[in-house]
Amino acid sequence: MPRSKGPAQPPAETGPAAARHLPEATLVRLTQYLRALTELREAGRARASSEVLAEAAGVNSAILRKDLSLLGSYGTRGVGYETEVLAQRITECLGLTHEWRVSIIGAGNLGRALSGYGGFRNRGFSVVALFDASPDLIGRDVNGLRVANVAFLEDVLTFTRTNMAVLAVPGPVAQGLVDRVVRVGVRSILSFAPVVLQVPEGVTLRKVDLATELQILAYHAQQAAHADPERS
Amino acid sequence: MPRSKGPAQPPAETGPAAARHLPEATLVRLTQYLRALTELREAGRARASSEVLAEAAGVNSAILRKDLSLLGSYGTRGVGYETEVLAQRITECLGLTHEWRVSIIGAGNLGRALSGYGGFRNRGFSVVALFDASPDLIGRDVNGLRVANVAFLEDVLTFTRTNMAVLAVPGPVAQGLVDRVVRVGVRSILSFAPVVLQVPEGVTLRKVDLATELQILAYHAQQAAHADPERS
Repeated sequence: MPRSKGPAQPPAETGPAAARHLPEATLVRLTQYLRALTELREAGRARASSEVLAEAAGVNSAILRKDLSLLGSYGTRGVGYETEVLAQRITECLGLTHEWRVSIIGAGNLGRALSGYGGFRNRGFSVVALFDASPDLIGRDVNGLRVANVAFLEDVLTFTRTNMAVLAVPGPVAQGLVDRVVRVGVRSILSFAPVVLQVPEGVTLRKVDLATELQILAYHAQQAAHADPERS
Repeated sequence: MPRSKGPAQPPAETGPAAARHLPEATLVRLTQYLRALTELREAGRARASSEVLAEAAGVNSAILRKDLSLLGSYGTRGVGYETEVLAQRITECLGLTHEWRVSIIGAGNLGRALSGYGGFRNRGFSVVALFDASPDLIGRDVNGLRVANVAFLEDVLTFTRTNMAVLAVPGPVAQGLVDRVVRVGVRSILSFAPVVLQVPEGVTLRKVDLATELQILAYHAQQAAHADPERS
């Protein structure tokens, strides 16, 4: 479907800058609202109040209303939000009307886990290729994908029209693979390698470090313990 | 080692509240500084300038100085930061002087990937148990851990003194497992299940949804394309 950015714009008084740079926390919540809306629509709900939607998303309803107002989406008093319209607005805001063709590089446990992750396809992402360097894995069928030889990375990325690459490889080989991926024009990269990676301007790189998630959890757990010592 | 929170306190004028609630983005960067400091120390560097540290962490040096000032850590002009002292302050701030004993529930591809993740141990986390419900996996050796039967979850969590649980299981079974984990006193839970989970007050739950990461990447990629259309 053609990308119509109209509905994704914030109210005029907010200005386009706000649409350009939504806070990370808001982005995370938007993805939660989108998941909740999908569930509500599958349950046949054409409308949902901010309370119902907030409950389904596991978020405070006042925060939800504030987030959605940034997209110019205001619920109707007594009616709430139209689930289909709102899902479409969030989808457009997140850039998911774009067709994302994802190649996963690295068919180890993590790469295989990602290739089999059910949450991708129904949220605008198609996994089109899975790569590895190991002769034991190349040619094997993993979740319906045949593991491709990373030696042919450039050709397969081009052939599959990949526009998003996910790196599930050891740190030492990550930068070299990033460089190869960028050279064939892929501008969106998600890396699970726990190393700092350099990309040229115009390429968007996002890093997920599983140890970071544990460390942030540890921090919040410590704060909770301080806030209420008897619970620690 | 006993937890000394002294050095983790912010400058007096900032007030303890600031120490209690560091912004998420700052927390993520602190984990990046900690990783960079570990690398620098392994390379024998006793001191590092904010520029060197920022470069190693892949962060802007002005932001780094601002972040570290929140911990009351100020580099000495011409000398920089003492890598060991700074690493210790960040470690204390993140609550990593606490011994985190992690049990991973779910020994599928993701659980196996997590159990083998090298980045945990040297950052204060020991994986002490790995669980699954499948007879094909129970008893198997995975990364030096024998897969335990989830039927005995409570006993093993208690026996291993687990204080952090990681859920790598399908959505439908996640809440039931969270309830069981909480019942034996585990107060820190990291979930990879793409569902909303309820925990009682005093329990810290952090969710990682791999699709969320892709959606946030998609948003930033879209913004980069808008900012410079010729690059899209």
